[in-house]
Amino acid sequence: MSDKFSDQEKSGLYKAIFTRRDVRSHFNSKPIDNEILTRILNAAHHAPSVGFSQPWNFILIKDLQTKARIKQSFEEEKNKSTNQVDDSKKEKYISLKLEGILESDVNICITYDPTRFGPFVIGRSSIPETGIYSVCCAVQNLWLAARSEEIGVGWVSILSNDALKKVLELPDHIVPVAYLCLGHVEEFAEKPDLEVVKWLPRLDLKDVVYFERWGQTQNTPNWSQIHELIRTNLDYAFK
Amino acid sequence: MSDKFSDQEKSGLYKAIFTRRDVRSHFNSKPIDNEILTRILNAAHHAPSVGFSQPWNFILIKDLQTKARIKQSFEEEKNKSTNQVDDSKKEKYISLKLEGILESDVNICITYDPTRFGPFVIGRSSIPETGIYSVCCAVQNLWLAARSEEIGVGWVSILSNDALKKVLELPDHIVPVAYLCLGHVEEFAEKPDLEVVKWLPRLDLKDVVYFERWGQTQNTPNWSQIHELIRTNLDYAFK
Repeated sequence: MSDKFSDQEKSGLYKAIFTRRDVRSHFNSKPIDNEILTRILNAAHHAPSVGFSQPWNFILIKDLQTKARIKQSFEEEKNKSTNQVDDSKKEKYISLKLEGILESDVNICITYDPTRFGPFVIGRSSIPETGIYSVCCAVQNLWLAARSEEIGVGWVSILSNDALKKVLELPDHIVPVAYLCLGHVEEFAEKPDLEVVKWLPRLDLKDVVYFERWGQTQNTPNWSQIHELIRTNLDYAFK
Repeated sequence: MSDKFSDQEKSGLYKAIFTRRDVRSHFNSKPIDNEILTRILNAAHHAPSVGFSQPWNFILIKDLQTKARIKQSFEEEKNKSTNQVDDSKKEKYISLKLEGILESDVNICITYDPTRFGPFVIGRSSIPETGIYSVCCAVQNLWLAARSEEIGVGWVSILSNDALKKVLELPDHIVPVAYLCLGHVEEFAEKPDLEVVKWLPRLDLKDVVYFERWGQTQNTPNWSQIHELIRTNLDYAFK
């Protein structure tokens, strides 16, 4: 590979970023090819990590009993969460499909091991959370690689970490970070499910960008062009 | 864009993943084009987020005084951390270049706002940390998009979050997640700096994959092919 990206290579990356979806509803039963799954895992393993500590593990799950026990934890946690939803939105919330644990071919639990290459890890001394942040970067690499391979991924976070630790026999010091469902899909939705059902809108880029310090949205000398660019509402994607 | 990825599009994504580097040493003074920076920010803004909460903000920094104050926090925290390093590695540690705050054209602080669209956010009720995890996924999107645009990124984590909050005037409830340095570079190193100087080795994929439960590395019926594949030490990257 040459160092510079061709237009097609660049647009492949942006395509993965913009068409990636959190999949719950469209899994089908076609199994994932093992070479593809290996490439996806290797992409995750090449995430950045604080001090090059590579503090992740990937537990691959196909066992139906394991999936069923995780699904039970989901049901319990979803029931509990219903009380927290405003009455006006409760019915809609209950009707949402929020996981595909049993329908997806492979489940993967990604974990954080704070003892990996420790106790001293470069860059983790002032902000210990950066260890877990590294694992999240691995999740995103996995998600994008899967999308490019036409594999859907759904992150199930309505779970009890205690249940995960028990079912997957995690040692006390290991932190479960993400529980993912992977499988072939009927389609990738054009927009996120929660945007489609009008649960929440997508924010404009201009609403999340500040200049030089928190809250500063005004045009400033260093940032006048970008101030304009993020307000044009054009499609910023590379073509 | 058609839904399926061409071979070139796919290899563009993998190329970004495998050639991305944490850049400290090779920044040059060429400014970043504002259209490119906008595309990179928009890529970050299209990260997955728990309950579609999009809980991130991006503070763009060029002000030299701000950079100098952040650099001072780095110096203080690095000095403190030196005591934690084994004597045998201390000299090497002190000699490492671990940030490019002043040399890089743009610094970006990415923050987490737990109040965004709250208090109830779908999927965050059982594991509140998933809010911050979403912000980390945005960091990784930004990093990969920047790489494809030939922009280097370095994540500086040897910093005091209290100093960041003070210098950038963050409200109490806002969590600084990542402080990134972005700029054009002389080159992207072939391997991570900490691998090159033999601080730590890259782990094999087989060392971080388990089957069905924590610690299980043996060949099992569901996983015999992948058990073999991750032990072949071939280059798994898509060609």
